[in-house]
Amino acid sequence: MVFEEGSVRLDGAALLDGAAAWARGEAGSGDLRLRLDPALPPEGYELSTVPGHVEITGGSDAGIFYGLQTLRQLLPPAALRHPSSLTAGPVEVPILRISDAPRFAWRGVLLDVARHFMPVPDVLRFLDLAAFHKLNVLHLHLTDDQGWRIEVPGWPRLTSVGAWRTESMLGARVHERYDGRPHGGFYTTDDLRQIVAHAAQRHITVVPEVDMPGHMQAAIAAYPELGNGFTGPVRTAWGISSHVLNLEPSTLDFCRQVLDHVCDIFPSELIGIGGDECPTDEWPGGRELQARFTAEMAAHLAARGRRLYGWDEILAGGAPEGSVVAAWRGVEPAEVAVRAGHQVVACPDVKLYLDYRQSDDPAEPTPVGTLLTIEDVYAYEPPQSDLVLGAQANIWTEHMESLRRVEYMAYPRLCAFAEAVWGPAQRDFADFATRLPAHLARLDALGVNYRPLSGPRPWDARPDAPGNPRTLTDRLAELHEMTADLR
Amino acid sequence: MVFEEGSVRLDGAALLDGAAAWARGEAGSGDLRLRLDPALPPEGYELSTVPGHVEITGGSDAGIFYGLQTLRQLLPPAALRHPSSLTAGPVEVPILRISDAPRFAWRGVLLDVARHFMPVPDVLRFLDLAAFHKLNVLHLHLTDDQGWRIEVPGWPRLTSVGAWRTESMLGARVHERYDGRPHGGFYTTDDLRQIVAHAAQRHITVVPEVDMPGHMQAAIAAYPELGNGFTGPVRTAWGISSHVLNLEPSTLDFCRQVLDHVCDIFPSELIGIGGDECPTDEWPGGRELQARFTAEMAAHLAARGRRLYGWDEILAGGAPEGSVVAAWRGVEPAEVAVRAGHQVVACPDVKLYLDYRQSDDPAEPTPVGTLLTIEDVYAYEPPQSDLVLGAQANIWTEHMESLRRVEYMAYPRLCAFAEAVWGPAQRDFADFATRLPAHLARLDALGVNYRPLSGPRPWDARPDAPGNPRTLTDRLAELHEMTADLR
Repeated sequence: MVFEEGSVRLDGAALLDGAAAWARGEAGSGDLRLRLDPALPPEGYELSTVPGHVEITGGSDAGIFYGLQTLRQLLPPAALRHPSSLTAGPVEVPILRISDAPRFAWRGVLLDVARHFMPVPDVLRFLDLAAFHKLNVLHLHLTDDQGWRIEVPGWPRLTSVGAWRTESMLGARVHERYDGRPHGGFYTTDDLRQIVAHAAQRHITVVPEVDMPGHMQAAIAAYPELGNGFTGPVRTAWGISSHVLNLEPSTLDFCRQVLDHVCDIFPSELIGIGGDECPTDEWPGGRELQARFTAEMAAHLAARGRRLYGWDEILAGGAPEGSVVAAWRGVEPAEVAVRAGHQVVACPDVKLYLDYRQSDDPAEPTPVGTLLTIEDVYAYEPPQSDLVLGAQANIWTEHMESLRRVEYMAYPRLCAFAEAVWGPAQRDFADFATRLPAHLARLDALGVNYRPLSGPRPWDARPDAPGNPRTLTDRLAELHEMTADLR
Repeated sequence: MVFEEGSVRLDGAALLDGAAAWARGEAGSGDLRLRLDPALPPEGYELSTVPGHVEITGGSDAGIFYGLQTLRQLLPPAALRHPSSLTAGPVEVPILRISDAPRFAWRGVLLDVARHFMPVPDVLRFLDLAAFHKLNVLHLHLTDDQGWRIEVPGWPRLTSVGAWRTESMLGARVHERYDGRPHGGFYTTDDLRQIVAHAAQRHITVVPEVDMPGHMQAAIAAYPELGNGFTGPVRTAWGISSHVLNLEPSTLDFCRQVLDHVCDIFPSELIGIGGDECPTDEWPGGRELQARFTAEMAAHLAARGRRLYGWDEILAGGAPEGSVVAAWRGVEPAEVAVRAGHQVVACPDVKLYLDYRQSDDPAEPTPVGTLLTIEDVYAYEPPQSDLVLGAQANIWTEHMESLRRVEYMAYPRLCAFAEAVWGPAQRDFADFATRLPAHLARLDALGVNYRPLSGPRPWDARPDAPGNPRTLTDRLAELHEMTADLR
């Protein structure tokens, strides 16, 4: 980025109209000129301001889009609130020239809508904010022991039974306290198509995930014939259910039907089947059954021109060829996956799990996991390998009952993550920290309930829902144990 | 409305572009032609479809806007989801001619953001939905005993202390159960300006309300010098605090400063000062003090070219000339106000309080108030008088912790209300009920968490937060007693 002295006054309405015109397939004109240059990286762009106009050249529509996001950051924060505050008069844009392109192709965020359902408008807003930060993958965790969120033709009980539970836990699981309060919800096919379309307009790929063969208690509650004798309800407790799928042919058929429906809705090449944390208590055949199951699903997806996306547990039995690994159990599994020749998305829990606590302030809401500050997130670097597609920050919503709480946990750590995966490997947190307050003013304008740098607001606290903070040493020892079968 | 046989296929993208062009100050063109005709009522419009195009003529921009809302209803529900679903191809619009105008000038809804804070994006969405139903007033209840939501220069403790509370009640007050869970939040001046601008674009006037001299415990918690010796916290219990403002000159100055700030933000001619439910336990001078206080505030507002909007309690001491009365305590006060020569907005609790329970289904969340079905709301008619500006439905959020819950209580009853205040006095619920399912499909497309006609979804229930349903007979007797001083 090259700054020159001074700034240029532009007509804000013209800037916005130019962007809207581009979305309609017309070139910008007047104050905002947009054009494609295939010589640039597909997601790259060049932005320059001169007295009189702003010019954005993109390597593709995505590049143009990212240039426009940068332009939005260059405008006064009030411009982010509403067109009307912009169109009221000219805006100041500094004179500069930016040449920019992302380092990683996968700049992702996982949103868990299984533990707490999030209404469609909230998901759309979550996508808006992710796109503003130039993220390009939403890993959408649609099912789990605690809830099933996707309507599937022919299987109505998945949603009538599986999409809600009678109550959940108040705080971390160790306290064994329940709140007596039902919650739930699910997405219709049209809802999901809307989410996909909204994301695509913002150059975000939605990678859906239906977790199997473990994390399936909600489905088994709906259809006990999928399980191994379990006839209970959707799981109300946090944590992992021991009630998993049986691997009868009829159950594999069910899984294929679900994946077919998922493929019909989601154009993503990668389709998540989870594969994580599958207890084998109910399987006399033991762990090797899972590798066979995963291979079956990979073959089914391949027949539809898709590839399997799974958590690093799928490495244990030898992951199917062409599958992509989400490496989460600490930093080792990414390296294991690379050595095995698999493409990898790095999301080590101790570095990128945004449900982990942001500080040791006793007022942090339901502190769980290890301490994971914004500086820690900013510092994370995935392993260097062409097989590493990029990274993703994961938002597990066991303790987030609303979008407002999700925003508190996600921001500003997700800002730090976005810069880490877009910008250069060499970076300086002190410099980022200097720039952050100006960005927080943008988040204020966008109405984001981010965590203030000074700590939680009084109403962010959850004294009624105590947490269970862990030390890094303990967690690393646990991860070492958990990943023994990868070594 | 005149329907002819058949339908016309139009380019959905052109329809949307035409609407966007109108918002930019250009006439529509192509498939959608828009024009003004000052001979029509200001909020009226004519909409006609012929093979090839749709024409909307409005009495003003507002009329055009309402014509466009009707057009949105004529398109397939999927068109409401997202431009992309529309631009994918042509849409069917029936061939018809509509000539339409509202019956009442005040088609309002009150949103209580004091009992539960609602983040800005949720307020904007609430406005979008209200505008879709052609409502044109948002009565925004900004302060109460349980929370203060508006930042006021020079009075920082109003928000640092007054904008949150340590906990609130689980269910109705009679159960005396608390949840131990903090909540809160407030709007900055920019936030409120954004809400006003967003509303104005949708032809909605935001009428702000700062409740005084009662319902002031949050402010007194922040600045005890405003009270009469009370030094406690923001009220955690539901219901009315006995801790009210003192009426010292310095306190009147505070009130004027707050109203000045409110007038700076809100262009509405009417400014709400509440005036309801003010206990006099702390006032040796008794009730007549309130009338003097109200007169002072009315004079201050008049000096700024505004008029006072207050609840019908202000009638007791003789309401200031030019003030407008929100008549809520049953149906009598509206008639009293009219007889006293005041303009009135009718909002009788037993007819239009949307926090009252929608059915006697035991699964209704926290049932309170009297039974108020969608048919009851549809049937309500304000008294006939030129002084009756219209009506408003009030949403008190004591038992609504989220927008999702607000939508459950508001819709579809607010659809019935919208038709009652827009359409003719003679109307037929059976006919409305026949048309409602098609409208619910639109609400589905808009992601509205409305109450299904069949009853609450399992996850709408709140067994943890029991209610306190009342009978109509009891409530009417209570209202009769409460309004004794008006007779």
